[in-house]
Amino acid sequence: MLSVADARARILESLRPTAAEVVALADAWGRVTAAPVAARLDQPPHDVSAMDGYALHASDGAVGARLRVVGSAPAGHPWDGRLAHGEALRLFTGSVMPHGADAILLQEDADAADGWVTVNEATKPGRHIRRAGQDFSRGDILLPAGRRIGMRDVGLAAAGNHPWLAVHRRPRVAIAATGDEIALPGEPIPAGGIVSSNAHALAAFVRALGGEATVLPIVPDDLPAIAAAADAARGADLLLTTGGASVGDHDLVQAGLAGHGMALDFWKIAMRPGKPLMFGQLADLPVLGLPGNPVSALVCAVLFVLPALARLSGLPAAAPLPANDHRADHLRARLAPAADGTLVATAFERQDSAMLRLLANADALILRAPHAPAAPAGEQVSVIRLDTLGL
Amino acid sequence: MLSVADARARILESLRPTAAEVVALADAWGRVTAAPVAARLDQPPHDVSAMDGYALHASDGAVGARLRVVGSAPAGHPWDGRLAHGEALRLFTGSVMPHGADAILLQEDADAADGWVTVNEATKPGRHIRRAGQDFSRGDILLPAGRRIGMRDVGLAAAGNHPWLAVHRRPRVAIAATGDEIALPGEPIPAGGIVSSNAHALAAFVRALGGEATVLPIVPDDLPAIAAAADAARGADLLLTTGGASVGDHDLVQAGLAGHGMALDFWKIAMRPGKPLMFGQLADLPVLGLPGNPVSALVCAVLFVLPALARLSGLPAAAPLPANDHRADHLRARLAPAADGTLVATAFERQDSAMLRLLANADALILRAPHAPAAPAGEQVSVIRLDTLGL
Repeated sequence: MLSVADARARILESLRPTAAEVVALADAWGRVTAAPVAARLDQPPHDVSAMDGYALHASDGAVGARLRVVGSAPAGHPWDGRLAHGEALRLFTGSVMPHGADAILLQEDADAADGWVTVNEATKPGRHIRRAGQDFSRGDILLPAGRRIGMRDVGLAAAGNHPWLAVHRRPRVAIAATGDEIALPGEPIPAGGIVSSNAHALAAFVRALGGEATVLPIVPDDLPAIAAAADAARGADLLLTTGGASVGDHDLVQAGLAGHGMALDFWKIAMRPGKPLMFGQLADLPVLGLPGNPVSALVCAVLFVLPALARLSGLPAAAPLPANDHRADHLRARLAPAADGTLVATAFERQDSAMLRLLANADALILRAPHAPAAPAGEQVSVIRLDTLGL
Repeated sequence: MLSVADARARILESLRPTAAEVVALADAWGRVTAAPVAARLDQPPHDVSAMDGYALHASDGAVGARLRVVGSAPAGHPWDGRLAHGEALRLFTGSVMPHGADAILLQEDADAADGWVTVNEATKPGRHIRRAGQDFSRGDILLPAGRRIGMRDVGLAAAGNHPWLAVHRRPRVAIAATGDEIALPGEPIPAGGIVSSNAHALAAFVRALGGEATVLPIVPDDLPAIAAAADAARGADLLLTTGGASVGDHDLVQAGLAGHGMALDFWKIAMRPGKPLMFGQLADLPVLGLPGNPVSALVCAVLFVLPALARLSGLPAAAPLPANDHRADHLRARLAPAADGTLVATAFERQDSAMLRLLANADALILRAPHAPAAPAGEQVSVIRLDTLGL
């Protein structure tokens, strides 16, 4: 019998990420980037004031100095002139620095009256000025490809001036619960039957993972009905069935699909619960047959459907880490649930510590002890999670 | 200046959970139950076989015994008769036990031929039989009120025969970014202006928390425009503004809303970043004014909008724990992000360890050391998370 890891590998091998589609930024939350998102402008676009106050020449900013206020430039209303010595310009948070000025006098450090301002606290050149491009520069990669777009990413892509994003199409998953004994909630229950819970639980699972679920009508234990369900699933990226996946007298899913042209890959794996797990390929439709027992179905969904959805969604696979030097390192990394339900931390290729942006992109910090040897993909690492809120 | 905790308490005080609405079970994932969901039937509804094999009288199940196979009862096709001594009925996983039978002979422990079956392994009464109501009984509470519905909950409510669920209406949050200097992504950027990132990041945040976001057009720094935005937000459960919340010359949000009838609660709190946080009430519309700086806006969203959404959504508040006895206890608990972004674990009132169902409902186990004293709501506890996958 196949191991869980081998079965998973064989399922993943047959799956490819969905193609890209374009969505409005407003609809991009939760989707997966299909291409890197580069900044289309510098942020901030100009040197701007970080505080309310006055722009001036730093050399004019000694305590007691009096400067003539030549104008006011609220955010969004820049002042066109060039600031001369002896002059000050009223500014607010986000106001563009006028030409010539290189210092900010905070409003709480100034006395203003009658068009003049007095310096009560010496200014320092550059202090309280946000430099153009300080957050990011045009062309910087704001979001890598294969990134699940969180709320911070929506903000970052917006700031980078992207009204649209190329994302992977949501994986389409068709779900067919099989069995003469099951009925949908609220519908007449056959004698000796039970209410079907798997199909809609799996649909919620698929939705939680960013997929699009289509729940097919319940499939009776009948070969032509099973073949018809496979036809109904055409166009999906994955067909999930529940029940009847074994080879008992009434386990007809395998027979029904094989008779309809499915190339069977495996149907039995060494695990509990969930031994009768079937996988095959019906033309270009991968088919995963889950057990009918709800607990087994859920466990198999976590072990196999979750990584399958991650692959279809375009999320990245794991990557190895280089050996560390003498300093404790904290690698900025993405986290993605994968494989056996554990989280896979993938360190960014660039570990530039200059800017907040790279940190904002990180779901976690991978902790690398001094002199830690190179770690192959799949090795367990300690992380500090930054994504605990899931935002 | 107000502390973060006091500010949060004052915001939460003014918010009430939204009213209930009815949604199809298929649309219930991620919603919050507005009423407890009770089982409408016993699960399983009858004694059923847990394995493929034969039903028989246990006293007939000695090694070497030969029994006449009187019929076959696949799942969903129960056998109507009463099984006599010396008889066996062919069963499969989920098949209803026939009257009279009290044991299961596994198919791998049997030799069957010509309508007779030979026992190769002695049977034990009750073994491999799932008893009626073993999972839950009619009337059992499957989901408490105030529960965020996960995929397992969808399955449980389905199994309890609920095609519809009463859930809290999604909180409606109107979002208005203010400022002459901002433009939506892809639109012409005013001189000295920047691209607006707050509104759509907040909309994603609201959506991630189960709310419904309406992004209003950007509001210029102009008193009547600010008042008009408040009118446009009517019917929302909460209005979020960004920018202009302070009292600088160009911070007009407070003035614009106060002039339109807003009762100001507070507008300044002792925190960094995010000092200019404004809260008020415009008729029955609570208004939270966030800072314009994106980092400040995000931090304030986590500290204030997140618990506000939890309250509006109908999620429960924290509850105290009683003192523990001499045994290490593992309390089944719900987790909900709250307050300062930490997770709040709320132990179920009932800690009946008999059934899987209570465990399935739990997001975490709270670890209670032997003789742990009573813990007030808000005390830090250690947990084992069961919800790591967020399903």
